[in-house]
Amino acid sequence: MWDIAPQFKAMVVFAEHRFYGKSMPYGNLSYSDAAHMDSFTSEQALADYAVLIAYLKSSIPGVSHSSVIAFGGSYGGMLAAWFRIKYPHVVQGALAASAPVLQFEHYTPCDVFNTIVTKDFALAGDSCPKAIRRSWDAITRLAKSSGGLQYISQAMHLCKPLKKDAGALKSWLTEVYGNLAMANYPYPASFLSPMPAWPIKAVCSKLTDPGLHDKQLIDALFKGISVYFNYTGAAECLDVSQATTGALSDEGWGYQACTEMTMPFCADGVNDMFEPSEWNLQSYSDDCYKKWHVRPRPDWVPLYYGGYNITASSNIIFSNGKLDPWSGGGILKSLSDTLVAIIIDEGAHHLDLRASNKDDPPSVIAARKQEVEIIRRWLGEAAGWEQHAQDGRRLVVHDSQVKREHL
Amino acid sequence: MWDIAPQFKAMVVFAEHRFYGKSMPYGNLSYSDAAHMDSFTSEQALADYAVLIAYLKSSIPGVSHSSVIAFGGSYGGMLAAWFRIKYPHVVQGALAASAPVLQFEHYTPCDVFNTIVTKDFALAGDSCPKAIRRSWDAITRLAKSSGGLQYISQAMHLCKPLKKDAGALKSWLTEVYGNLAMANYPYPASFLSPMPAWPIKAVCSKLTDPGLHDKQLIDALFKGISVYFNYTGAAECLDVSQATTGALSDEGWGYQACTEMTMPFCADGVNDMFEPSEWNLQSYSDDCYKKWHVRPRPDWVPLYYGGYNITASSNIIFSNGKLDPWSGGGILKSLSDTLVAIIIDEGAHHLDLRASNKDDPPSVIAARKQEVEIIRRWLGEAAGWEQHAQDGRRLVVHDSQVKREHL
Repeated sequence: MWDIAPQFKAMVVFAEHRFYGKSMPYGNLSYSDAAHMDSFTSEQALADYAVLIAYLKSSIPGVSHSSVIAFGGSYGGMLAAWFRIKYPHVVQGALAASAPVLQFEHYTPCDVFNTIVTKDFALAGDSCPKAIRRSWDAITRLAKSSGGLQYISQAMHLCKPLKKDAGALKSWLTEVYGNLAMANYPYPASFLSPMPAWPIKAVCSKLTDPGLHDKQLIDALFKGISVYFNYTGAAECLDVSQATTGALSDEGWGYQACTEMTMPFCADGVNDMFEPSEWNLQSYSDDCYKKWHVRPRPDWVPLYYGGYNITASSNIIFSNGKLDPWSGGGILKSLSDTLVAIIIDEGAHHLDLRASNKDDPPSVIAARKQEVEIIRRWLGEAAGWEQHAQDGRRLVVHDSQVKREHL
Repeated sequence: MWDIAPQFKAMVVFAEHRFYGKSMPYGNLSYSDAAHMDSFTSEQALADYAVLIAYLKSSIPGVSHSSVIAFGGSYGGMLAAWFRIKYPHVVQGALAASAPVLQFEHYTPCDVFNTIVTKDFALAGDSCPKAIRRSWDAITRLAKSSGGLQYISQAMHLCKPLKKDAGALKSWLTEVYGNLAMANYPYPASFLSPMPAWPIKAVCSKLTDPGLHDKQLIDALFKGISVYFNYTGAAECLDVSQATTGALSDEGWGYQACTEMTMPFCADGVNDMFEPSEWNLQSYSDDCYKKWHVRPRPDWVPLYYGGYNITASSNIIFSNGKLDPWSGGGILKSLSDTLVAIIIDEGAHHLDLRASNKDDPPSVIAARKQEVEIIRRWLGEAAGWEQHAQDGRRLVVHDSQVKREHL
């Protein structure tokens, strides 16, 4: 956005979603109970954006007739697409980057995300996902053996040694593999965590031998995931209770995932490299109720926003990177002339939204070029329509006067 | 709808808006305070309809792939249009009859409604609106004179004699004139109140002499408005506290008009026949706060639903009768090939939605024919799109599999 704004003479506005960052409707009480959080919805976020845009247009000189394009990545990409779907009179188009608008029950199989993560790791060599797949049982065996939890805790440099089992470590690893796949960029970056170029390759360079014994495997695993949690060398230990949440507000997303944004995930350990886990809506819902006193409404998002059936809408780019595990829940095929899917072969999570970089692969350079061309077309059409709409208004008023005079 | 359902082999479903009729979310407490009413919005009503349609499609054998057309008149017509605007994946089109979607601040002058009512009365002869225009001062003069309130109360057969002033009677008359214009049908009907064919003509037949003295004018006025409140002859007296509210839930609409549906009305007594009254949002808002502890958000409906700027939408018929005072806030000119305005020259409030009648004027017969043709086209297109959407789904799934295999 920063790169292309000048050529469009565009203002760039970042609108903060309520219940994130500083946008707390009830200050410190905003997360205190379900009653304080009932406006914590995607619909309300879109309404806020509409009001914000109307306010900016009415208060900033010279912008009252400006066109507006919505941009977003990930959940922000879903919001960008949905904003155009629900408020086409407010935004002339939307770039929805890596927006998993179909990552919902009945729309996308729950194993797709983990399958794509696994394929990303396999690109660095088959040994890597094999070693990771083996590591779950290795951790389990060690955890049950005498002194095993202590060994794991020391080998992994855990800030707080494991006490009962290795569940917390496994959860952390599971999330980190997904994060590595999302942030598998071709140059050093700090999305989710500071990491080198192609971080999966860096991780996998330590996991080349899937035949290691359990303890050796744990040692190798530590070297691998150090790429994720300690690329800068500043970490003194590995904190599995929070290390993945640094860059994202998990608290807020946890609530949204317990209400509207319930996305099914599962793994089988065969087609993917993860410890098998089933998707169980009921137990998920029970956990939500325990934590937030709310329950998911898993069918609502597809019903409200349309799922696949959005061909009555227009002017949305759905861009997805093939390396991005979220692409499995994205729209990967153009649905009409104006609902355009762009696939970025070498792209991880919304790579196209990042600033241009000398190491950008050709696919993202081409995607950005196509995106700019489409946006330029939308803006041209918007200018035409604005004139048409003004003519329409005059005609309507005129007709109403005629009618009254002749009644 | 009943007339045309058989030729479409259609099921007719009437969905009740929450907070009306029997659809009380909190039973007897539903209207108890603002906190109980915070889901009393048009957005929630549309969401309810979407959920209902999804439920019907999933639970009634054979209808899962049926197309759905939304029908509505007046506020229901607004909802029908907005349903298609916001949920085009749920309804293939909407007939919005007499839907004053533009009857909002900055969109329609506040005097338009009363001006059209006045022209309707003028069609029965200029004397009629002249007599009514004079009656306000006549009532005021009489009310201030010795024994005047008693005279008015007797002449008008009021159930409860006027005590302080004639304000309640004036409010009742103001509303009744509007109701007469809305229900100015070419045959006897019972919309708002049982009335003869062309009820304004019947009222005005008693108000042919605008030069009457005050008391004579009141006598004539009573004869005139008897057409409205006592066409059946069953009324023993005129109850100005509730006579206009029989057929509508004014309580519910009062709340909606104090939150989302704030429609400015005014009169000047010159271009219209009403007692001059200004539109004052602040005092209106203060009244709302006193009654409901809420305040209007007058800009929200146009911002949320788009006002005039709905050309990104499609498949909506906006029908309006030239006799209908609400037509002033309607869309009277087609906005695109698929946003079609139909004007019914001899039509009052959503006449086209009423059952066909031997006394139907040609304009409404032609309008209904055009509506059926357009709906038939929508359904044909919907059948085509459904097939296309299924192909699209297959392609998307296929593509996702390809991607995963080749990653």
